[in-house]
Amino acid sequence: MYTYQHEHRVRYRECDPMGVVYHTHYLDYFEAARTEALRDLGVRYRDLERNGIIMPVVSATVDYKQSAEYDDVVIVEAQFPEMPEVRVPIDYVVRRAETDTLLATGHTDLCFMNAERRRPVRIPEPVREAFLPHLPASS
Amino acid sequence: MYTYQHEHRVRYRECDPMGVVYHTHYLDYFEAARTEALRDLGVRYRDLERNGIIMPVVSATVDYKQSAEYDDVVIVEAQFPEMPEVRVPIDYVVRRAETDTLLATGHTDLCFMNAERRRPVRIPEPVREAFLPHLPASS
Amino acid sequence: MYTYQHEHRVRYRECDPMGVVYHTHYLDYFEAARTEALRDLGVRYRDLERNGIIMPVVSATVDYKQSAEYDDVVIVEAQFPEMPEVRVPIDYVVRRAETDTLLATGHTDLCFMNAERRRPVRIPEPVREAFLPHLPASS
Amino acid sequence: MYTYQHEHRVRYRECDPMGVVYHTHYLDYFEAARTEALRDLGVRYRDLERNGIIMPVVSATVDYKQSAEYDDVVIVEAQFPEMPEVRVPIDYVVRRAETDTLLATGHTDLCFMNAERRRPVRIPEPVREAFLPHLPASS
Repeated sequence: MYTYQHEHRVRYRECDPMGVVYHTHYLDYFEAARTEALRDLGVRYRDLERNGIIMPVVSATVDYKQSAEYDDVVIVEAQFPEMPEVRVPIDYVVRRAETDTLLATGHTDLCFMNAERRRPVRIPEPVREAFLPHLPASS
Repeated sequence: MYTYQHEHRVRYRECDPMGVVYHTHYLDYFEAARTEALRDLGVRYRDLERNGIIMPVVSATVDYKQSAEYDDVVIVEAQFPEMPEVRVPIDYVVRRAETDTLLATGHTDLCFMNAERRRPVRIPEPVREAFLPHLPASS
Repeated sequence: MYTYQHEHRVRYRECDPMGVVYHTHYLDYFEAARTEALRDLGVRYRDLERNGIIMPVVSATVDYKQSAEYDDVVIVEAQFPEMPEVRVPIDYVVRRAETDTLLATGHTDLCFMNAERRRPVRIPEPVREAFLPHLPASS
Repeated sequence: MYTYQHEHRVRYRECDPMGVVYHTHYLDYFEAARTEALRDLGVRYRDLERNGIIMPVVSATVDYKQSAEYDDVVIVEAQFPEMPEVRVPIDYVVRRAETDTLLATGHTDLCFMNAERRRPVRIPEPVREAFLPHLPASS
């Protein structure tokens, strides 16, 4: 499994009248975490797009455990359990940094797609190679 | 089952560089649809909150089928399959109005909660009565 | 002056821990109001873009008078004081529908721009003609 | 003048179909920059709020010069030109880190307000003291 931890400071605009992070923003946290996870491997999503590959989200799930509050620092861990092929499954665990409280877990499936034809494609070879030291190739 | 259809015009701010609605906004569409579904029953969420009941989202899932584009009108159908007790399960179906294309399906579980003590509570009686003509009481 | 009134129901996601609309969302209200104002004239921004014309925002100002609250219906009036040339000045007045309270005023300058070359251009002739019954042509 | 530079990585959700940051998000960048500027002085906005002081935005202006693109790192400089009294004027300058290109300038006026009575109040003494080494007291 390849994992990466992304840190985020909760902003006022993300908090609702209950005084806690509005539930939709966890999906934004997931996006930032997986983008930085890829960057840490040497893969810049911006470059993929410029080369005609996009990675749309196919499905997303979030389970909310405890609320993050305004100005909390949250740690968003992105976990890549296996070598992606066409589909890219990613798990997420969100914790409050100060107390290590589990706030939420989630999952997204993305896929590699040809931007022009909007058709799923296999993982680009440079991305596969970036994952290879961390994830056994699927057989 | 109680169902309600909410209409939404896709705004520029919701669209991403792929030219389509960014995936997180479907959760916002769900929020608007369930709020209007409750209003249609005579239940105003704002009044619930003023009476000390909040309805946090416990879990959320979205499956993305096709992309909504800028300026599309989308129909978001909220489906309440059963009389809520403590937990409020809701299904969603999102279609493009013009073509009736299925864009996404989703599910959220909310729960009734005492705002002050942050403890789950049973469905308030007036809300149960509002649902009763549409949903058989659970046995 | 050409004016158009756009109605918007304040959503939970737009409200902050003060229990009122977070200030940035007024710019979103402005976007919706001017888009609908143009549509009412027969000009669909989506079609402009497909014809290679974009309308970026050059400057924006908001003055906040009173707070909009969750579930309020707000009326956002977009006012086009003069025939646009390259630049499109628009004023906005936001009121709470129920009480007619003035909530905010604002102004944006947009401009017509060639999407490909990212260069300002004069108002496309069909847009000028759509405005003409409402706005005296500048001399 | 007290100045503080806040760094932000542009996220996908912030970018629009023109492929650049949607204009409303600069107000979010301003919020993050002023919050961190205050933290750097030892003032945590969260603590102010817990002590019954809120800081609503009274007016906001943004002038857009060049577009920020997806994945750009932007530097948002918050400038406090004078010791705040009741009103807190702040200027902002946004630059792309990599090229030092000027992207936008802006201004917000906030005010100190009693959260319960929603009345403007003078700057709390601990906040004034935090600013004092950086800003001459107004006469």
